[in-house]
Amino acid sequence: MTRQSSTSSNTAPPRRLHLNVNILHSGFVPSAWRLADADPRAFIDVKHYVRVAQIAEAAKFDAVFLADNASIADQINFRPITALEPTILLASIAAATSHIGVIGTASTSYNEPYNIARRFATLDHVSGGRAGWNVVTTADLGSARNFGRDAVPDHAGRYARAAEFASVVKALWDSWEEGAIVGNKATGLFADTDQVHAAAHQGAHFAVQGPLNVPRSPQGYPVLVQAGASGDGRDLAARHAEAVFSASQSFDESLGYARDLKTRAAAYGRGPDAVKVLAGLTTIIGATEAEALRRRDELVDLIPWSYSLTRLAGTLGVTPDRLKLDEKLPDDLSLPGQGNGNHTFFHATLAQGRQHGYTVRELIRALAGGGGHRVIVGTPEQIADDIEHWFKAGAADGFNLMPDTLPGGLQDFVDGVIPILQRRGVFRREYEGTTLRGHLGLAVPENRYSAERAAALAV
Amino acid sequence: MTRQSSTSSNTAPPRRLHLNVNILHSGFVPSAWRLADADPRAFIDVKHYVRVAQIAEAAKFDAVFLADNASIADQINFRPITALEPTILLASIAAATSHIGVIGTASTSYNEPYNIARRFATLDHVSGGRAGWNVVTTADLGSARNFGRDAVPDHAGRYARAAEFASVVKALWDSWEEGAIVGNKATGLFADTDQVHAAAHQGAHFAVQGPLNVPRSPQGYPVLVQAGASGDGRDLAARHAEAVFSASQSFDESLGYARDLKTRAAAYGRGPDAVKVLAGLTTIIGATEAEALRRRDELVDLIPWSYSLTRLAGTLGVTPDRLKLDEKLPDDLSLPGQGNGNHTFFHATLAQGRQHGYTVRELIRALAGGGGHRVIVGTPEQIADDIEHWFKAGAADGFNLMPDTLPGGLQDFVDGVIPILQRRGVFRREYEGTTLRGHLGLAVPENRYSAERAAALAV
Repeated sequence: MTRQSSTSSNTAPPRRLHLNVNILHSGFVPSAWRLADADPRAFIDVKHYVRVAQIAEAAKFDAVFLADNASIADQINFRPITALEPTILLASIAAATSHIGVIGTASTSYNEPYNIARRFATLDHVSGGRAGWNVVTTADLGSARNFGRDAVPDHAGRYARAAEFASVVKALWDSWEEGAIVGNKATGLFADTDQVHAAAHQGAHFAVQGPLNVPRSPQGYPVLVQAGASGDGRDLAARHAEAVFSASQSFDESLGYARDLKTRAAAYGRGPDAVKVLAGLTTIIGATEAEALRRRDELVDLIPWSYSLTRLAGTLGVTPDRLKLDEKLPDDLSLPGQGNGNHTFFHATLAQGRQHGYTVRELIRALAGGGGHRVIVGTPEQIADDIEHWFKAGAADGFNLMPDTLPGGLQDFVDGVIPILQRRGVFRREYEGTTLRGHLGLAVPENRYSAERAAALAV
Repeated sequence: MTRQSSTSSNTAPPRRLHLNVNILHSGFVPSAWRLADADPRAFIDVKHYVRVAQIAEAAKFDAVFLADNASIADQINFRPITALEPTILLASIAAATSHIGVIGTASTSYNEPYNIARRFATLDHVSGGRAGWNVVTTADLGSARNFGRDAVPDHAGRYARAAEFASVVKALWDSWEEGAIVGNKATGLFADTDQVHAAAHQGAHFAVQGPLNVPRSPQGYPVLVQAGASGDGRDLAARHAEAVFSASQSFDESLGYARDLKTRAAAYGRGPDAVKVLAGLTTIIGATEAEALRRRDELVDLIPWSYSLTRLAGTLGVTPDRLKLDEKLPDDLSLPGQGNGNHTFFHATLAQGRQHGYTVRELIRALAGGGGHRVIVGTPEQIADDIEHWFKAGAADGFNLMPDTLPGGLQDFVDGVIPILQRRGVFRREYEGTTLRGHLGLAVPENRYSAERAAALAV
């Protein structure tokens, strides 16, 4: 019903497909750095990130996205890590581009709201209104130990802190009203202090007086992005997020997720267009499906098997010696269920593998070294069909693309898939604006004090 | 004696003059934003900062420098504030330049060592080895209240935290040895984990396990900068800093400061060239001295007198109504003494004003709206003479330039003063390298684990 009403309306603007590229060093398959044209040091080379961003901007992507961690990854002997701090790297990218959005991850667990509000407001200023903040909590013990803790804070505590954190950051972003900078050279009045406001926040986790020492940024607020799959995560997203990265593995689940999220958002007084659902998607592209599958197997087979076995065993909660490459998964192994937000490609592939009797090697290939997000192995046409289907049906407003290799896999997508999506009228041919909010069709948030003033005047 | 021995040696490389430009929005005189060619919004416009940096790079400056605060400034109704977060803004500047160093301020009081280590290592990576960190503690109540505190931590406590903070950051910067990234495509070995080390720090203020999730940056460590004048500050500088910003007001005091600092550094086993002393210097330039003085008075008279009176009164510890513009300072007013690190231009000018019977207006003009740093009002020749004298005598290794207006005052310096310094062989005509350490003549710190390994092999 929702779909019908939205497509039958002649007055509503057409829905737009949104595409981000997630820049994870040399690509999402852990062996990407081993290809002949890859530089193993690309993960710490700003030129690599700029090059990927420029390819994405030439193809009119909405944004580049950077993940982040607060500790070293496991198994660094086999693959690059997420090393460079995102907001700084995104400033470098913004300087070399003009339109594409720049979304960076920062944790609410090991930062202070005042610092994060400043950094993303600054990124919004230097990028001319292209910044987004991906709000995450941090759950690994390694990170906890880098910040004076012996244990990971519990799930509910992390999300309570995150929700208060996001509220404080928004309050700080409202510190300066649009008209606060007067700059009257004749009178010498620089700022109207009546339009600069304290936050005066006192909460369970934070006491922050404010005001922020950064004037209102071009987008009002940088775009708030989130990726919560759990109940707490969905609730945080429904309250604060304007774009959500989902890891849904099937069309039906993604549709259910999108509907659930938009229902939760409505409970906070937010309309269905206020939160965009972007599904994670790894692509492995070939001129034929057989060629794409060959590419996948070649990439997976370049990952040291000890790495893949350890990773799979870790996710399954067993020791690596329980898994034999050319045997099936042990029959007595209970697979993780698909409840509690575990609707990922990983869980679906496990179930499929058991059903069809995959060997461990076949299972690892089918997972394509993926980290829980969906993988499509196929031709540009097949990938475009899938994207169009999900988009038109409302299972996703767009995709957070995680190419198998970078920049190669992105270039293949741009050369092969984008023209098809453009011909079908699904994806833009030109940018219509220069801000991330503009690309995503998100409103600029009204400053709370300006709104109060307007309401008072209207009485 | 030190001077003689250093100038009589034929083998030592020539000492080099170092010049940074401190980019404080539209310039160091608070009225700079009111000039006809100034944009009042320049303080939040990345293009403004990039333009200043490009002028400085064309003139072969060592670095640009950005101050920082963790709260809003007083009297924002009269002048711009330090708004944009330095590391992000410096990444933007680095992307638009190729040689000049980028030094940013970050506080040890309201950050975590792991985050700071990451950010400056990242800035060093994206700038290709041009990053510096100005280590400060934060002493204002406004900042404390933005980070959950009701009071400012005491001086000794702030410096104890800062010293431990700097030690942890250095340990984290040593996490990855130079050879840790193997990147062997044939074998699949990406990193040699024997060359990646935990910090395992347990101290009074921090517990940080490490390793840092950023590989060793181009400079080994970003350059450590500090500006402490107090005993605690000098000690922190002697232990960790490689460049120190001083606010010395007179030649003799600066010489004493430089000698004291280098003596303290020697106690930590550091040579006299391991710490560069850069004196703060505001310049107001005219074709004649009379023209320069007119420029100064015009700029000062453009500052609202209520602002200047409030600022002066605040520094003197009296209420503004005690000060009458066209009268002398009240005779019963006790001026702040020049002890305890108070050897600043401000204190010297106060003493001079009392001696010569300045009115408050004349005193405010003589201070040129300055914030405690020395002001030279004069011709390019006079300024070059002063710089050369200080430099050759060892009262400073260089200057942290704080032009009256930006970019205008810097352009005047570049057009007028730099050619004189170059003709006299005091300042470089070309860069000899591309790193900040190279410009400053500072060694790349040896990784502590690599050093241990080398020592073990040598036995």
